Amino acid sequence: MARYDFASDNTAPAAPEAIEALIAANSGFASGYGSDEISARAADAVRSLLDADAEVRFVASGTAANAVALSSLCRPFEAVLAHEHAHVCTDETGAPGFFGQGLGLVGLPGASGRISPEALKAPLAAPDFAHRQSPAALSLTNATEYGTVYTAEALAALIGPAKAKGLAVHLDGARLANAAASGFDLKSIKSLGVDILVVGGTKAGMTPTEAIVIFDRKLAHRFDARLKQAGQLPSKGRFYAAPFIGMLESGAFIERAAHANAMAKRLAALMPFAVSHPVEANAVFVEMDDRTLGALHAAGWFVYRFLDGSVRFMCSWATTPNAVDELGAVLADISR
Amino acid sequence: MARYDFASDNTAPAAPEAIEALIAANSGFASGYGSDEISARAADAVRSLLDADAEVRFVASGTAANAVALSSLCRPFEAVLAHEHAHVCTDETGAPGFFGQGLGLVGLPGASGRISPEALKAPLAAPDFAHRQSPAALSLTNATEYGTVYTAEALAALIGPAKAKGLAVHLDGARLANAAASGFDLKSIKSLGVDILVVGGTKAGMTPTEAIVIFDRKLAHRFDARLKQAGQLPSKGRFYAAPFIGMLESGAFIERAAHANAMAKRLAALMPFAVSHPVEANAVFVEMDDRTLGALHAAGWFVYRFLDGSVRFMCSWATTPNAVDELGAVLADISR
Amino acid sequence: MARYDFASDNTAPAAPEAIEALIAANSGFASGYGSDEISARAADAVRSLLDADAEVRFVASGTAANAVALSSLCRPFEAVLAHEHAHVCTDETGAPGFFGQGLGLVGLPGASGRISPEALKAPLAAPDFAHRQSPAALSLTNATEYGTVYTAEALAALIGPAKAKGLAVHLDGARLANAAASGFDLKSIKSLGVDILVVGGTKAGMTPTEAIVIFDRKLAHRFDARLKQAGQLPSKGRFYAAPFIGMLESGAFIERAAHANAMAKRLAALMPFAVSHPVEANAVFVEMDDRTLGALHAAGWFVYRFLDGSVRFMCSWATTPNAVDELGAVLADISR
Amino acid sequence: MARYDFASDNTAPAAPEAIEALIAANSGFASGYGSDEISARAADAVRSLLDADAEVRFVASGTAANAVALSSLCRPFEAVLAHEHAHVCTDETGAPGFFGQGLGLVGLPGASGRISPEALKAPLAAPDFAHRQSPAALSLTNATEYGTVYTAEALAALIGPAKAKGLAVHLDGARLANAAASGFDLKSIKSLGVDILVVGGTKAGMTPTEAIVIFDRKLAHRFDARLKQAGQLPSKGRFYAAPFIGMLESGAFIERAAHANAMAKRLAALMPFAVSHPVEANAVFVEMDDRTLGALHAAGWFVYRFLDGSVRFMCSWATTPNAVDELGAVLADISR
Repeated sequence: MARYDFASDNTAPAAPEAIEALIAANSGFASGYGSDEISARAADAVRSLLDADAEVRFVASGTAANAVALSSLCRPFEAVLAHEHAHVCTDETGAPGFFGQGLGLVGLPGASGRISPEALKAPLAAPDFAHRQSPAALSLTNATEYGTVYTAEALAALIGPAKAKGLAVHLDGARLANAAASGFDLKSIKSLGVDILVVGGTKAGMTPTEAIVIFDRKLAHRFDARLKQAGQLPSKGRFYAAPFIGMLESGAFIERAAHANAMAKRLAALMPFAVSHPVEANAVFVEMDDRTLGALHAAGWFVYRFLDGSVRFMCSWATTPNAVDELGAVLADISR
Repeated sequence: MARYDFASDNTAPAAPEAIEALIAANSGFASGYGSDEISARAADAVRSLLDADAEVRFVASGTAANAVALSSLCRPFEAVLAHEHAHVCTDETGAPGFFGQGLGLVGLPGASGRISPEALKAPLAAPDFAHRQSPAALSLTNATEYGTVYTAEALAALIGPAKAKGLAVHLDGARLANAAASGFDLKSIKSLGVDILVVGGTKAGMTPTEAIVIFDRKLAHRFDARLKQAGQLPSKGRFYAAPFIGMLESGAFIERAAHANAMAKRLAALMPFAVSHPVEANAVFVEMDDRTLGALHAAGWFVYRFLDGSVRFMCSWATTPNAVDELGAVLADISR
Repeated sequence: MARYDFASDNTAPAAPEAIEALIAANSGFASGYGSDEISARAADAVRSLLDADAEVRFVASGTAANAVALSSLCRPFEAVLAHEHAHVCTDETGAPGFFGQGLGLVGLPGASGRISPEALKAPLAAPDFAHRQSPAALSLTNATEYGTVYTAEALAALIGPAKAKGLAVHLDGARLANAAASGFDLKSIKSLGVDILVVGGTKAGMTPTEAIVIFDRKLAHRFDARLKQAGQLPSKGRFYAAPFIGMLESGAFIERAAHANAMAKRLAALMPFAVSHPVEANAVFVEMDDRTLGALHAAGWFVYRFLDGSVRFMCSWATTPNAVDELGAVLADISR
Repeated sequence: MARYDFASDNTAPAAPEAIEALIAANSGFASGYGSDEISARAADAVRSLLDADAEVRFVASGTAANAVALSSLCRPFEAVLAHEHAHVCTDETGAPGFFGQGLGLVGLPGASGRISPEALKAPLAAPDFAHRQSPAALSLTNATEYGTVYTAEALAALIGPAKAKGLAVHLDGARLANAAASGFDLKSIKSLGVDILVVGGTKAGMTPTEAIVIFDRKLAHRFDARLKQAGQLPSKGRFYAAPFIGMLESGAFIERAAHANAMAKRLAALMPFAVSHPVEANAVFVEMDDRTLGALHAAGWFVYRFLDGSVRFMCSWATTPNAVDELGAVLADISR
C-alpha cells in the first residue's frame, strides 16, 4: 500500500490544536457567513500574527483565495507577473484566468522559485501596448514552490520596482508558516507593500482553511459579495476560523512549521542524491532518474517529479523522525 | 445577546455523527484531491442513498456546487429556468452567472416555492431567438425555499416537458434530507431524469460539505479539472467526505432531518400568526408585521423577513423542543 | 416579398453622407487600430457635437459598446440598474453579463421606457447585502426603447440620486440623434454626470459603427486593451470613424433624425389604432390584435409585437412620406 | 510624414471590388442580423470557395472571430494548442481567455510559424491531469504569422494526431487568400478535419469583415445567440457580407492576394538584409539592427520588429511595384 507521507504537505492530517479548536467551536448556534464571534476572534489572531490592521476572511480553498485575490487586483485585459513555476501559473488549472475572466499570467524566471529581480525589469519597463495584457499586479510566493524563502529584503527588491510602476502586490502564503519558521518576519509584510496576502492554513496543519488578508481597505469594498459570488463565503464560517484560533493562539502555527522544516533538513542530510534547491523550508528536491523513482514507488513511497525535473519530498507537521529515517534507509538502499 | 436558533438551518453546529466521522478521518496520511479511501467510501454511501450509479464529488460550498453544476449544463448564451425565489436566483450574488460567464436565469412563478407546471409551458414553447438566452436547463429545489416538498410525481410533471425539449435538469438538494424525511423518495431521482444533483451536507447537520452527484457520465468528463479551476477540488478531501460517511452510514442523515421537520411542525402548532406556506419540511413561514418582528428581535430572537414578505423560522437537527416551546411562549406574548 | 421599411431603423441602408465619407476615407494607407487621422478627426467631431472633452472610440457593435461600457463601471458581484425593457436587459442575449462576468441587471419599471424616479428609490436605499448584487451603475437610454425622449431635467432627476449613492452612469444613445432632433440637448450630457456614453451610428443612418465616449478619463486607462480583448478594436479603424465625419460635419446626423421623427409623427397621424406611447422620436407603437397583425404581414409589411404587447413601427432617415402614406392606406384597410 | 505601406496588410484601403459591392448592397431595406439576401449570397460564395457545405457567418473582427471559435471548441478548464507566436497567443490581448472564460493557451514551437509535428507529440501524449488545463483544441494559422504556408499535407500531419486524441480544430485564415494564392488548396480544408475556419476579409483587401465557417453543424446550434451575446451579430449584416460577394464572385480574393504575394517576392529580391523566413505569402522578414531600423523610420517608412526579433514588411493588394522599388532603394541606401 502506498505511503503518502512525503507526497505533499497536504496529505497530513490536521494537527491536534486545529482539531481541538474546531471541536470547541462546534457548540451552540452561531450567526452565519463569517459574522460570528469565532470568526472575529480568529481574524484578531491573524492581525496579531502580522501585527497589522487589515480585513481578514476565511475561505475553503487556497486556489480560490489566490484567484479571488488576483481578480481583485487585475482586470481581464491586464496581466499578473509571477514566477513561471508559481502555483498560480502551473498548478491551479487556470483558476486565475477563470476567476479573472481571462486575465493574463506572465511567468518570470528565477532560481529555486524566487523571481530574479533582473527578470522583473523587462516587463516593468515595457510600454503599455493595447495588443498585449500589460502588468497590473505582481504575485509572490513565500515560502516558494521550491522550498526556498524570500527574506524581507529580497521581497522589497521586487515589490519596490513593481509598486513604482503602479502594480498591486499579492503574496501567496500557502506555506507562510514555514517561511516564518525559517526566519521571515511576518510583521514586515504590510510595510513591504503587499496589498492582499493569503495565509495558508491547510498546509500548516489545519483542516481546510485559508485566510485572505486585505491590507488595502479600499479593496475590501463589497468583498463579502465577491466571496459569496465566488462560492467562498461559507455559511458555517466558524469551521474555517476555528483552526486558525487553535494554531495561532497556541503558537503551534510556527512551531509545527519549524518541526516540518527540521524534518526537511534531516531528510536532506540523509539524501544519497544531489539536492537541487536550498533547503530553507519543508521541501527537499533531489535529482533522481526514472529507474530510481520507480524503485522508490515500488518500495511503497509515493512522491513525484516536479516541474524542474527534480523529485520533491515534502515534510509536514506530521512527519516523524522515524519516517524520515525509514525513508532515508530506503533511499540509501535503492541508490546503490 | 441574540439567539440564532431559528435564523437558519446553518446556524446550528455539526451533529455528533458528522464530527465523530471527521475526527476518525483525521488519522494518518491520505492522498489528496479526493483520491483517498475516505472519499471513495463516502461516494459509495451517497450512491447507496440514491440507489444509483453516479460520479460523486465533495465540495465546500453549496453556492459553488450549484453554480458549477449549472455552468456544466448551460452555455453563456443560454438560460436556466428556475423558481423565481430559488436560491440560485435570489441568494447567491449572481454565482451562476459568474461561474457560467453570464448565463441567464429565468425566474418562474409557483406557489410556496414549487414551480407551477403551467408557468413552465411558455418558456418551453418559445421558439429559439438569437436576441434572448433560450433555456438549456431546468433547476429544481427539493425541499423548496418555502419549506414545501415536491413529490416524485410533481417533479416528473416538470422534468418530463423540460426533457422533451432537450433541457438538462439540475436538482438543488441543499435540504434534500428534509425532503426525504418528509416522504420524498431519493431513489427516484435518477429515474426522474435529473442530470446533476447537489446533496446538501451543511444544512443537514454536517460541517461544511456538499456532494455533487453526476448521473450523466458524459458530464463528468474532466470534472475534476472543472472543480479545481473553480476552487472546489479540496486537497484534504477527506474532511469533506467524512461527514457524509458519519451521517449516511448511521442513518442520521434522514433521522436528524426528521427531527428538524418535527420541530417545525411543533413550532407551527404554537404559532399565533397565520402560517404562509404548508409546513412540509423544516421551515415555518408566518405573516408578521414590522412592529411584532421588532419585538421579537428585542426579545433576543433573530429571524428575518423573506422574499415573499413573510417571516421565516428554520428548524435544524439541533433545535430542541424546549427552544421551540420557549420561542412559542415569546411569540404568544408579543402577539397579544 | 416582405418589406422591412418599418421593422427597425436598422433595416435602412446607410445615408449618402455616411457612404460618401466612407468612400473618401478609402484612400491610401493609414495606421491601424484607431491611430489614424480619420479616427482623430471623427473623434473631434463627436466632442464638438457634445461640446465636451472626452476620450472617443469607434466600434462595430452597439451591443458590444454597451456591454464593454457596463463592464467598465460594474464588477461581477455588483449590478446595473436599468429600465426593465432596456435593450441591455432584453435584447442583447445577456451580453452585459458575458462581458461583465455575470454582473447583475436589475430591471426597473417606468412608463413608456423611462425609468420612474420613484422606482429608483428602493434599490438606491437598499443596504449593501453580500448575498445580492448591489447596484454600482445606472444605465439610461435616450431616446428610449418606446420612442420617448428624456429631457435633461428628467435625466437629472435619475442621475442625481444615483450619483449621490456612488453609482456610475451609462447612457445608451443608440438613438441619440433622434433624441437630439426631438429637443434633447446633447451638450448637457457631460454636465449631467454621464460617465460613458454610446452614440449610435448604425440606427442614425450610418454603416455599422458606434462611438464610445468616455467622459471620466480615469475610466479610459488601458481602454484600447479592453477593446482589443473584447474584439472591438478594429484594425481598419477608419471605416468606423468615417461615417461619423460624414454625418456630423454636415449636420446630417440631426437632420436625418429629424426626418425620421417627422415620419413617425406622420404615421401616427394616420394610425387607425390606439397609439401606446407618446411619439417623441422615430417610433410608433400601437395596439393591434393578432388577426390584424397577421393581415399586415399578409399584405407584405413586416413589423413585430414588442415587449409590452403593442406593435412597433420604426421610421428611419430612409423612410419616405410615400411609404408612410402607402402603409397608412394598408392599415386603414385592414382595420376596417 | 510616416508611410504605412509595409507596416501591415491592414493599413491598406479596401479594394475596388469590395467597395463596389458594399455600395451596391446599400440599396433599399433589408432584414437584419444576417437574415438578408446579401448575407445568404455571400455565404454561398464562401461555400463555393471551399467547395463545402457549412454554416457561414460574417462578423466585424478577426480577433473576435477566433476567440468565439475557440470558446466554442474548448471549455474554460481546457486548453488550446497553438503556435507560440500565433496571433491568438500573442496579439489579441488575451481575447481567447476572455471569450473562453480563462481557457488556456499552450504555445508550441516550430520554425517560421509552422507548428513542429514533433512539438505536438508531448501535449497530445500527456495524460489528463486535473491540475492543468488539458488540450481540447488545436489552432492552426494559414498563411502563418511568418509569411509561410502550410501545405494540405503539412496540416494533415498535425490535424491527424490531434483528431485521434479527440481535439477539435480551428483554422485562423486571416491570410487564407495569401495561402491559397501560394498554392494551398482551399477545397481541402473540410476534408482535413477543420471544425471552424475563419476566412479573413480585412487583410485580403475588404472593409472590416471576417467569415466564420462552421463545418461541424452541431457546433452551429444557437450560434447566432452566441454571436449576439459576444457583440458579433451585426444588425446591418449586409455590410459585412457584401465585400465577400465582391471579392469572391469576381475572383479578386485570390488574384489580389497573388499580387500581394508577388510584391513580397519582389521586395525580398531587393533586400540587402538576410531574409529570416521563407517568403511564401505576402510577408518579408529580415534581420536588421536597431540603428538601421531607426534610419528606416527616419526615412519615413514605418515597420516594426516582430516577436522573433526580425523586422517585418507586409505587402497587400495595394502595394505597388513602384513602392517596393522605392523602399528597396531606401533600404539599399541605409544598409551601406
